[in-house]
Amino acid sequence: MTEDRRSVLETFENPRPGRPYEIRFEVPEFTCVCPKTAQPDFATIYIRYVPHELCVELKSLKQYFWSYRDTGAFHEDVTNRILDDLVATVDPEEMTIEADFYVRGGIHTVVEASHYRAESA
Amino acid sequence: MTEDRRSVLETFENPRPGRPYEIRFEVPEFTCVCPKTAQPDFATIYIRYVPHELCVELKSLKQYFWSYRDTGAFHEDVTNRILDDLVATVDPEEMTIEADFYVRGGIHTVVEASHYRAESA
Amino acid sequence: MTEDRRSVLETFENPRPGRPYEIRFEVPEFTCVCPKTAQPDFATIYIRYVPHELCVELKSLKQYFWSYRDTGAFHEDVTNRILDDLVATVDPEEMTIEADFYVRGGIHTVVEASHYRAESA
Amino acid sequence: MTEDRRSVLETFENPRPGRPYEIRFEVPEFTCVCPKTAQPDFATIYIRYVPHELCVELKSLKQYFWSYRDTGAFHEDVTNRILDDLVATVDPEEMTIEADFYVRGGIHTVVEASHYRAESA
Amino acid sequence: MTEDRRSVLETFENPRPGRPYEIRFEVPEFTCVCPKTAQPDFATIYIRYVPHELCVELKSLKQYFWSYRDTGAFHEDVTNRILDDLVATVDPEEMTIEADFYVRGGIHTVVEASHYRAESA
Amino acid sequence: MTEDRRSVLETFENPRPGRPYEIRFEVPEFTCVCPKTAQPDFATIYIRYVPHELCVELKSLKQYFWSYRDTGAFHEDVTNRILDDLVATVDPEEMTIEADFYVRGGIHTVVEASHYRAESA
Amino acid sequence: MTEDRRSVLETFENPRPGRPYEIRFEVPEFTCVCPKTAQPDFATIYIRYVPHELCVELKSLKQYFWSYRDTGAFHEDVTNRILDDLVATVDPEEMTIEADFYVRGGIHTVVEASHYRAESA
Amino acid sequence: MTEDRRSVLETFENPRPGRPYEIRFEVPEFTCVCPKTAQPDFATIYIRYVPHELCVELKSLKQYFWSYRDTGAFHEDVTNRILDDLVATVDPEEMTIEADFYVRGGIHTVVEASHYRAESA
Amino acid sequence: MTEDRRSVLETFENPRPGRPYEIRFEVPEFTCVCPKTAQPDFATIYIRYVPHELCVELKSLKQYFWSYRDTGAFHEDVTNRILDDLVATVDPEEMTIEADFYVRGGIHTVVEASHYRAESA
Amino acid sequence: MTEDRRSVLETFENPRPGRPYEIRFEVPEFTCVCPKTAQPDFATIYIRYVPHELCVELKSLKQYFWSYRDTGAFHEDVTNRILDDLVATVDPEEMTIEADFYVRGGIHTVVEASHYRAESA
Repeated sequence: MTEDRRSVLETFENPRPGRPYEIRFEVPEFTCVCPKTAQPDFATIYIRYVPHELCVELKSLKQYFWSYRDTGAFHEDVTNRILDDLVATVDPEEMTIEADFYVRGGIHTVVEASHYRAESA
Repeated sequence: MTEDRRSVLETFENPRPGRPYEIRFEVPEFTCVCPKTAQPDFATIYIRYVPHELCVELKSLKQYFWSYRDTGAFHEDVTNRILDDLVATVDPEEMTIEADFYVRGGIHTVVEASHYRAESA
Repeated sequence: MTEDRRSVLETFENPRPGRPYEIRFEVPEFTCVCPKTAQPDFATIYIRYVPHELCVELKSLKQYFWSYRDTGAFHEDVTNRILDDLVATVDPEEMTIEADFYVRGGIHTVVEASHYRAESA
Repeated sequence: MTEDRRSVLETFENPRPGRPYEIRFEVPEFTCVCPKTAQPDFATIYIRYVPHELCVELKSLKQYFWSYRDTGAFHEDVTNRILDDLVATVDPEEMTIEADFYVRGGIHTVVEASHYRAESA
Repeated sequence: MTEDRRSVLETFENPRPGRPYEIRFEVPEFTCVCPKTAQPDFATIYIRYVPHELCVELKSLKQYFWSYRDTGAFHEDVTNRILDDLVATVDPEEMTIEADFYVRGGIHTVVEASHYRAESA
Repeated sequence: MTEDRRSVLETFENPRPGRPYEIRFEVPEFTCVCPKTAQPDFATIYIRYVPHELCVELKSLKQYFWSYRDTGAFHEDVTNRILDDLVATVDPEEMTIEADFYVRGGIHTVVEASHYRAESA
Repeated sequence: MTEDRRSVLETFENPRPGRPYEIRFEVPEFTCVCPKTAQPDFATIYIRYVPHELCVELKSLKQYFWSYRDTGAFHEDVTNRILDDLVATVDPEEMTIEADFYVRGGIHTVVEASHYRAESA
Repeated sequence: MTEDRRSVLETFENPRPGRPYEIRFEVPEFTCVCPKTAQPDFATIYIRYVPHELCVELKSLKQYFWSYRDTGAFHEDVTNRILDDLVATVDPEEMTIEADFYVRGGIHTVVEASHYRAESA
Repeated sequence: MTEDRRSVLETFENPRPGRPYEIRFEVPEFTCVCPKTAQPDFATIYIRYVPHELCVELKSLKQYFWSYRDTGAFHEDVTNRILDDLVATVDPEEMTIEADFYVRGGIHTVVEASHYRAESA
Repeated sequence: MTEDRRSVLETFENPRPGRPYEIRFEVPEFTCVCPKTAQPDFATIYIRYVPHELCVELKSLKQYFWSYRDTGAFHEDVTNRILDDLVATVDPEEMTIEADFYVRGGIHTVVEASHYRAESA
């Protein structure tokens, strides 16, 4: 299933491949479903990455996040899955995903995961 | 008594054990009792940790904090006790507890304590 | 039980009885218990009143709110009860209670009730 | 279909029927689907009402909003539909629904509709 | 020319014609050209209206504002023109346009104009 | 003693006596002493008034507030006393004093009193 | 001298004379000199007016405010003088000047004066 | 074309060449055109640089940004182009361009690129 | 005199001596007297420290700050004196005092001083 | 001329010479004149320094900034001149000047320059 979701993501060539620079996205419209209670969960997803040879295309990114709408996903797990999918697609120099979830049980949760290209070498 | 309180905390397996990533909780609904005056105290507790093999389960965390409702606890002491209980339960790579207490005597107090796994080796 | 709670409230004579003026309190440290789930609830209580012959004493007000700590109370009900107790104690020209509760089930609730002396005549 | 959705809403008796007081809910986790493009829409729904004989139960309100998750709904229409459903259920003295939608096409939209009991007499 | 611009605006039938309710748009991406200096001007346009029989369609509204990109327009004049065009198109019960322009010569300018249907009768 | 304090206040002639206009002062540096506990109290005092024939001189106003530094004063009382002293000195068309006190016992208190010239006629 | 200053102000014809609408300016760069101490004073000037037959031209307004740079002016007086000069120049339906001065002697001062055309008839 | 745009930029001699210091510009009025959809794009551009022998002249910088008004430019590309043009013109010790674009498709995008003089040696 | 003031401060044993953790106090109610003009000064004092064997007791800290109420003290001097008194009393691993004074002569002043235990060895 | 301006600055002996600590001033009331257009410029000046043997006296600092009122000064130049004057007067361990200018031509400019004592040895 994750393989299918990844296939939504499209890329384009980094327009300035020799220079390390940062691209940041804020996606306030993320929703998935709690696998234990089947209740909807909501989050704002923050993405920061330094592109290597590819950049992720904005419209496909939007559609990628829509694909979670009916998916069951725990907070810690979904954050890492988003990172894995984006890393597999654009192979960035480095990338950080921060998922900021709405309050549940009076507790506000944020999960933040990073990938560095050197370490996967 | 602290032993009993710890037993409320439940864990689950870290879904991405190979990657160092951070989980953050904001718990604005913490209350305990001042051991000297028996007056209620209120705080917001901030938790940040990098999981090792285990993550703390959200609902049990909520119940753990409820258990302080009738407990006498000084500011400096309770912050360290929360850290000790969570470290004993999930053995994290690193963890920080920040307890932000309401004004008492015109003074606003914050206590922040951290644990690093390497140092306990 | 409400009768007992009311008896905690103390008053003093309005120092400027001829002039209609407003007194406002913000009480961010209110907690009670949900009567259905026995889970703790938290709120900030805002009081605004125009005194008639009596003012409510600040320290006794603090103790009055402490008395809810182990009391089961629905949001809509507890707001009206606080208003009834304070009106019965200081018989103000007018009074408004606004109770701003923490998020439950992803929903943030506020209840606001007012009393005008003329209308009770 | 609207009839079915309404049936999710539960009520309880107004605990203080003789006094006009206001209940406010903020529901930041509303999502539906654009009927033209099938794209997800997101909004924060604000409810303000003065109860007559009935109050709306909080948990059923949450489930009522979940029921829009797969429903196609235009901004102006859905706001009025929510108002109609809640008015039909609790018959309030007065009620206002404010729906604050996320940016679409660079434009941020808010729709606000009110009902007064007297006028439906 | 204004006639041409107006023709971009599309409408749809008010989904709830019997009820007076308010629709608000915030359009932060407005730009036109100063007719005296040919320098670009920037503004955020706020629209508030109570529909009568018609509502303005969101996408056409976006395109209407794009049409000002190469148009020379003074602050006081353009605000009134936008109001005239929208009133001519949807004939609202009432409508307010607020145009909040960027600083020029160290001065920040806002122009706000309203139309009430009764008065045009 | 209040008589002595009043004598600190100086006035000058209203430079535009025919026009009703408003003068506002924010005085964040007010301190007095609690008469019950002898503990220092702190407040920000807000003054709003419409002058009649006289205006209060700014520097003397500052010195007037300094004179409270060693004075015992309850919250409700001191607010009304400041209003009485300023009204006696400049005889304004209308005047409002808002005293915003620091948190005591977890409760934040504001007292606001107004005087209208017509009503004292 | 005030006559000279007024002559700096230029006007243009109100582009929409039949409609009462509001124009607002925020001028954060106002400075004059205290006539008593010769020390510089600083303020932000807010202007709100409904034009009658004339509007004030933005660039001339900027120059009008520059002309105060070496002028001695008390807070209450300068606010009324600005209002008098602008009223004499554009004869508005109504106009409000709010002058927000920097802290002096620990006190923050705002003066606000209004003119209504009807009353000068 | 980029060559032509660069020629708009004017420079002046660094007034303090021996000292490394930072100059920052915030340009909230940037607009260009999406090359794929021909729709206008809007951004705030932030520039930070440490001058070497030359500084960029403020008025020419404003005109340089105006030249993008009818230019098609992708987010990632235009940010790097602005950096290249400014580096080619003033040859700074170091320079960072941060372009903060308005929401598109529910996603807010920021691109940040830096140049260090040493690395181009 | 400083010796007397220090004697007000009370301590208790650090409840978790093996762990370096931080305690922070915000004291918004500090007032002293300008030694040159005899005018009152006001500040918010921020304290951050890592305890060694002792912690400072909250209530005594409040009384320590009250003792400055009639003391003449220059901004730079009083900040260092507070640091010296607290260091002499609790001998912390490290401590920082930040004193944020109200505006005087249009200028807002902050003084920040730190002590590290190692350096006093 | 700069020599004359410097002579306004007065100093006093650092009350705690052995300890490196920081003094910060915020001066929101700075104005000078653009040498090219003769138009007034406005800025907030931020000063941070670590004193060596001398501190700058607050009142003389205020007068030093007044002396710029009729001086022509470019943004980049005046920031460095203020730093040079203050360094020449108090010979600090380190000092930073940040000048935050009002919007000109739609662009907001900040210039920040630092001096370190070691480097001038």
